[in-house]
Amino acid sequence: MEKEEKTAIPPEKLSKILDIAQKRFARFGLTKTTMSDIADDLGVSKASLYYYFPDKECIFKKVMAREQGDFCLQMKKILESDKKIDAVLTTYIEHRIQYLKALINLGQLNHEAFHATKPLYSALGKEFFEREKNLIAEILQKAITRNEIQKINVDEYAGFFVHVLRSLRLYTLNIKELWEQGVIDKQVKKEYMFFTKIFLKSIEKV
Amino acid sequence: MEKEEKTAIPPEKLSKILDIAQKRFARFGLTKTTMSDIADDLGVSKASLYYYFPDKECIFKKVMAREQGDFCLQMKKILESDKKIDAVLTTYIEHRIQYLKALINLGQLNHEAFHATKPLYSALGKEFFEREKNLIAEILQKAITRNEIQKINVDEYAGFFVHVLRSLRLYTLNIKELWEQGVIDKQVKKEYMFFTKIFLKSIEKV
Repeated sequence: MEKEEKTAIPPEKLSKILDIAQKRFARFGLTKTTMSDIADDLGVSKASLYYYFPDKECIFKKVMAREQGDFCLQMKKILESDKKIDAVLTTYIEHRIQYLKALINLGQLNHEAFHATKPLYSALGKEFFEREKNLIAEILQKAITRNEIQKINVDEYAGFFVHVLRSLRLYTLNIKELWEQGVIDKQVKKEYMFFTKIFLKSIEKV
Repeated sequence: MEKEEKTAIPPEKLSKILDIAQKRFARFGLTKTTMSDIADDLGVSKASLYYYFPDKECIFKKVMAREQGDFCLQMKKILESDKKIDAVLTTYIEHRIQYLKALINLGQLNHEAFHATKPLYSALGKEFFEREKNLIAEILQKAITRNEIQKINVDEYAGFFVHVLRSLRLYTLNIKELWEQGVIDKQVKKEYMFFTKIFLKSIEKV
């Protein structure tokens, strides 16, 4: 069973806890952080932190979810811009890589820690998939309306686009040497760009 | 350190050992098979089997490598046919799914066993990547010569094509529910077909 937040927290209080916890996670990583550490940083008792959260993983998930929300908000703004679809998708990909890099840095993850923390990330991942799919569908729909691309089934294409991005990244994250060489992002970006090129080419107006 | 075959085996002898071992693996799976079982099936002593192979994993790898060779031979034949690129790639994908399904059946793998056996498969996978890449490059080159597709960098496109197929499959293999529902192949095929459609569309002659 997944542990969830125990008691509803007032928004300002939640925001403060997440700010403080995020700083600690970013500095010491998830594994080296304890509930006591976070309570100390907040200047509250451990018991009062446990009143709201069953464990540090739950706090970590909340921090990640907040980051995800920020990412989607940023992307919404880019969507509202007047750029063409290829520029929008390129920006999307750059932001996606930055966001996911931030998540990994947040947990101070390496290849081993990544595997251990997978379930934590995968729960958030399902939600993120839907959000990304909707964003990409919106991007495609807008491009159809502007006559930039062919009339396609936007939901199907959006879902597949996001699925390929995820699959490519997962594959790369599984290669230990790439973590060691610190070239995960570089490799992922290269593949994302190539795929986006093919994807756009396949739906361009002829 | 990876264990390798200890002593060179005469081809007919090797072929017989692999035939017999393959039958047992296919029936009982890798984990439930012992070196004694294989030696018994062959009607030889365990010591004489150990003379050639350090462990059952080494035999298993040889069986898998042989299957891979068969797959590539089959594909070479299809390449020599007169079909157009979309038909060739579709056939390729169908064969690929069948071949990989055979490998999984051979090990009697489920979601857990798959994860435990991953290193075994990944060694073979690297070699397979190169073989597949070369096959796809040949398919693309032929299509260019026949004026069916645009002039592209065949090595780059072939490598990316195979990489996406692998990434998509790995992602699906990581989803436990799909193993339980027995729909891995169905799901993988759907994604392969969609990707192939996009891929071909992006390089078609306009």
